[in-house]
Amino acid sequence: MRVLGIVVEYNPFHFGHLHHLEEAKKLINPDYVVAVMSGNFCQRGEPAIVNKFARTEIALKNGVDVVFELPVVYAIQDAGGFALGSVGVLDRTGVVTDIVFGSESGDVTFLRKVANLLTNQTPEFEKTFKRHLKMGYSYPNARKYALMDVLSNDVEKLSKSNDILGIEYIKALIKYSSDIQPHVIKRIGADYNDEQFKGKFSSASAVRKAIKENKFEQTKEALPEWTFKILEREFSEGRGPVFLEYFDFVIAMFRKLKREDFERIYSFNEGLDLRFYESARESGNLQDFVERVKAKRFTYSRIRRAIFHVLFDMEKSFVELSNEKGPQYLRVLGFTKRGRELLKAMKKNSKVPIISTASLYRNVLEEAKKKIAEGKVSWEIDESLYIWQFERDLLASDIYTFLYPNKFQRKAGMDFEYKVIEMLG
Amino acid sequence: MRVLGIVVEYNPFHFGHLHHLEEAKKLINPDYVVAVMSGNFCQRGEPAIVNKFARTEIALKNGVDVVFELPVVYAIQDAGGFALGSVGVLDRTGVVTDIVFGSESGDVTFLRKVANLLTNQTPEFEKTFKRHLKMGYSYPNARKYALMDVLSNDVEKLSKSNDILGIEYIKALIKYSSDIQPHVIKRIGADYNDEQFKGKFSSASAVRKAIKENKFEQTKEALPEWTFKILEREFSEGRGPVFLEYFDFVIAMFRKLKREDFERIYSFNEGLDLRFYESARESGNLQDFVERVKAKRFTYSRIRRAIFHVLFDMEKSFVELSNEKGPQYLRVLGFTKRGRELLKAMKKNSKVPIISTASLYRNVLEEAKKKIAEGKVSWEIDESLYIWQFERDLLASDIYTFLYPNKFQRKAGMDFEYKVIEMLG
Repeated sequence: MRVLGIVVEYNPFHFGHLHHLEEAKKLINPDYVVAVMSGNFCQRGEPAIVNKFARTEIALKNGVDVVFELPVVYAIQDAGGFALGSVGVLDRTGVVTDIVFGSESGDVTFLRKVANLLTNQTPEFEKTFKRHLKMGYSYPNARKYALMDVLSNDVEKLSKSNDILGIEYIKALIKYSSDIQPHVIKRIGADYNDEQFKGKFSSASAVRKAIKENKFEQTKEALPEWTFKILEREFSEGRGPVFLEYFDFVIAMFRKLKREDFERIYSFNEGLDLRFYESARESGNLQDFVERVKAKRFTYSRIRRAIFHVLFDMEKSFVELSNEKGPQYLRVLGFTKRGRELLKAMKKNSKVPIISTASLYRNVLEEAKKKIAEGKVSWEIDESLYIWQFERDLLASDIYTFLYPNKFQRKAGMDFEYKVIEMLG
Repeated sequence: MRVLGIVVEYNPFHFGHLHHLEEAKKLINPDYVVAVMSGNFCQRGEPAIVNKFARTEIALKNGVDVVFELPVVYAIQDAGGFALGSVGVLDRTGVVTDIVFGSESGDVTFLRKVANLLTNQTPEFEKTFKRHLKMGYSYPNARKYALMDVLSNDVEKLSKSNDILGIEYIKALIKYSSDIQPHVIKRIGADYNDEQFKGKFSSASAVRKAIKENKFEQTKEALPEWTFKILEREFSEGRGPVFLEYFDFVIAMFRKLKREDFERIYSFNEGLDLRFYESARESGNLQDFVERVKAKRFTYSRIRRAIFHVLFDMEKSFVELSNEKGPQYLRVLGFTKRGRELLKAMKKNSKVPIISTASLYRNVLEEAKKKIAEGKVSWEIDESLYIWQFERDLLASDIYTFLYPNKFQRKAGMDFEYKVIEMLG
């Protein structure tokens, strides 16, 4: 049995995503396809344009069999943390055999080589890495330049976002001693950062931008049928679109915080705490705030993610523990008829408990502890981390829904209200 | 030397306020007039329509000589706490000889009688008071009905807001063993809760409502010249109007809080914590939230004030200490040429330190401690309370300015940027 695993955000699902999915299937010829997807907040440090359940529906309509939620603690981390979470979820299903991801280089051997180098850092590499950090480069850039120094012949391949992420996926596979095989597909179409609308080849950024500019109709040509239909339904009922701009209010919240309050939150080092503290006092809205915080060593994405780290009370200690121990549960967002078979098989194979009904997350934990005590499973669950991770997901949803355009839709408790999406037709 | 003290909010200053001021002057024939004024948030649990410095300017233009800020911890309490703070400020100037306040009954002897009864509660009164509380009445209503039982002949006089406040002023005078003499002026014009616009006799509520409905021009007839001019200037520069509706975002903040987090904040008892917790999860905006929280024993004002208690982190312990020990400083917002003379005299008479330059509040405290140590003054300053009270004022300003309509005006640090308003012309 071959099970394909993919890491996605689908914000929103477009033809590029469909192409990747189809190519990956051709490559692996899998019996099942499993996706781990960011929830209501994405790795760029932005809210998703529609909620995770709507995006799950779209994924299932387009050929994914099971969608798991990437816990928010990983979804809003840099490439390293994001990969630890997403590969962690796929590995812990116990059934995924292959991962396929997009890559600019298309050279998985090279990516493996780099991942190995980064995992077992040579003194030569460490020296040049530290030198670049001292020069004031951001962490990812310093690493990039250090790798360039060490692997001088393959310089070009290191500057592209998909390859960087790919390296992190392989590093995570090494960390988890996973049997999953990594594969790459050479990426085509728009760069994911390209905001220009290009019809069928528009990036997700370009689609979101068009929607923000009230040109939703125009995105019809850029989106597979079900994406457009489901977005249309969500928008017409006022559960979206949700944009970063709606979070201006965090500045008022930040004005309540002292510098030390920022310091205990993940991602606040290298002086980012002071920049947040001072910029909150000066800024009139979020865009202004981000520009004020911006510095050579802080990328826009990092700044935006840090905003949500504060909003969701992501203490350093728990984020670091999350990166050490990996995801503590598998949260099912939806499945197809085929997916249901796979989930059945997973019950025997998964390496962490499966949460299908969010409101039962504490019961699931108690049952897991019982099974462990009885020797039925060999899971290693950190109880307080399990609760912390899952309650961050709940909190993220409760804040997300408050930003819906329609005030009657702004209730908390989305995770308890929605049932797992079952697409059995 | 006679110094008239008045307690005001001036939100905004209208002809009714002018009338009160002129009548009070006729009654006392004072050498100076001192006002203690709510800062950026008012006793109804709402932001002021324009900031405290603009409202200070208007007060000085209309015949007040010195304006002190009522620390926000008192400004957003019920009548009892509000009176403890405002009478505390006037008493601690050491120069105020008379207080004049509006009263529906116009009967200061009666108000004194009630204040004495409430200060030295008889067993008879306590019994009927507790009985009414048990029946589910709010604290102020239970007290009102208990007083009605005990003072059966004067029932009517107890249900009006000015008389209720007047009783609290006199209670506060008793508490501080103050020599200040209370006087009343029979109130004319609109009830302060009357939202109907009535030309020159419109209430402050009615004026704010007209402004909210974009009928600012119409308020010209309801406002003394300088009020209109200064509001016009503030609005045109985008520093107002500020309305409660702008604070919808507190609901997202509340969704981060557990029931226990509310419990440690002032005013959360009798189950208000649970109602806040649950209503935040259900509500789409602040108006909806307030309606959901509303119950027989929680008045609208109390609910709105409680919102700001959470927003400003007003822990029970410090609010209770504030009510026990009174205001720890006199914050000068502005003065006229005459007022300057009075402030000079106050330097020898005040019972707490005077803060004129907000940024020096810690220096002022250090100097005060030195003077106390040297036996130069007999002040009783609670150091941590002084800092806590003043830092609440600073925080309230920093959040207030973020709600300005003009994003370029939304900077924090208003208290450090503005100088004391000196109207020496």
